[in-house]
Amino acid sequence: MRGRFITLEGPEGSGKSTQAAKLCERLGEQGIEVVKTREPGGTATGELIREILQHDRAGEPLFPESEALLFAASRAQLVRSVILPALEGGAWVVCDRFADSTTAYQGYGRGFSVDDMLNINSFAVDGAQPDVTLLLDVDVALGFDRIQKRNTENGVENDRFEREAREFHERVRQGYLALAKRFPDRFRVIDASRDEGSVQCRVWETVCRALGMEAG
Amino acid sequence: MRGRFITLEGPEGSGKSTQAAKLCERLGEQGIEVVKTREPGGTATGELIREILQHDRAGEPLFPESEALLFAASRAQLVRSVILPALEGGAWVVCDRFADSTTAYQGYGRGFSVDDMLNINSFAVDGAQPDVTLLLDVDVALGFDRIQKRNTENGVENDRFEREAREFHERVRQGYLALAKRFPDRFRVIDASRDEGSVQCRVWETVCRALGMEAG
Repeated sequence: MRGRFITLEGPEGSGKSTQAAKLCERLGEQGIEVVKTREPGGTATGELIREILQHDRAGEPLFPESEALLFAASRAQLVRSVILPALEGGAWVVCDRFADSTTAYQGYGRGFSVDDMLNINSFAVDGAQPDVTLLLDVDVALGFDRIQKRNTENGVENDRFEREAREFHERVRQGYLALAKRFPDRFRVIDASRDEGSVQCRVWETVCRALGMEAG
Repeated sequence: MRGRFITLEGPEGSGKSTQAAKLCERLGEQGIEVVKTREPGGTATGELIREILQHDRAGEPLFPESEALLFAASRAQLVRSVILPALEGGAWVVCDRFADSTTAYQGYGRGFSVDDMLNINSFAVDGAQPDVTLLLDVDVALGFDRIQKRNTENGVENDRFEREAREFHERVRQGYLALAKRFPDRFRVIDASRDEGSVQCRVWETVCRALGMEAG
């Protein structure tokens, strides 16, 4: 049986990576084989692209059109070399960011046509549509506080996206909420302002309900 | 006055790079400021992308969708950081391959929808349309003989595209000819099977006629 495809989306500091890891653990406890991946990256090509996108590897300003196309290129590779083979082999796939990130960040955030972004995504993903997309929604100011705290603790600098203005991130957040309205069949909005454990419970219940599993 | 934008296109071994260099020399002799560039590459970001595209930098097979999007990403960066600023500054730009390469190689060659390729290009190039596109047309077998000779002389291996099957390159050639019919205003087809000097004369005459200059 083909596996299920779950994506986690949300603004900076919404806790996607932590929640993705916890969700995979929980699925694993149910005896489900899970492949966890992330965007951009997840393949050798994608990790090279990630270096350009998040860490200024080229040492020059990246134009937003190049940015959008690089995300799509990384995604195209990830879909074909990791996601589709895993699903076809019966594994479940949990992806920390996917196509909706491009629509939210480059479409709503950068101001490109949302339909252009949906078209480029459609070419990139070849029908690899998530069964459920968890939108971890969080107030931009709270998300930023979390990021600052985490980066300070880890002694790392803000990446290229974390350095963007608050207004950009506000547009991204509103963009995500607009996408959730546009694609209600697969989007589930989760209040990610709560503590980690509460969000974790909510994520699990939501996945179970969306995919017809016993919450256990 | 805004400069003129000239692109050279054609299958492998058609002599584009040599002819681009000669054309730039000749334009320079007329006192024209010329910026010469190439695709993929031409910017720090583009050169990183070129490593992935031509030289297997990631060490994994590249899916054709990723390939098409990486070319477009390199192009988006080149247009905005090199081509448009040069043209706006009054310089002429000579580009060794441009958007038509994606339509020919990924559209006709790989079998993607030509309209998809035109749409992705349109997003990438932002209206940077060549004033004239020189299609250096050459029989695939002859082009391959030239590539083999050149690579053997230089002791280099064939790159990722040069290793593709002849049928692929035949589709690319026919794709270019179809594009020349579809966009007759800017395309000029030049028989590139002749010797370098003859092709050079033909390139110069064609550029002069297309751009309303004295051939001198």
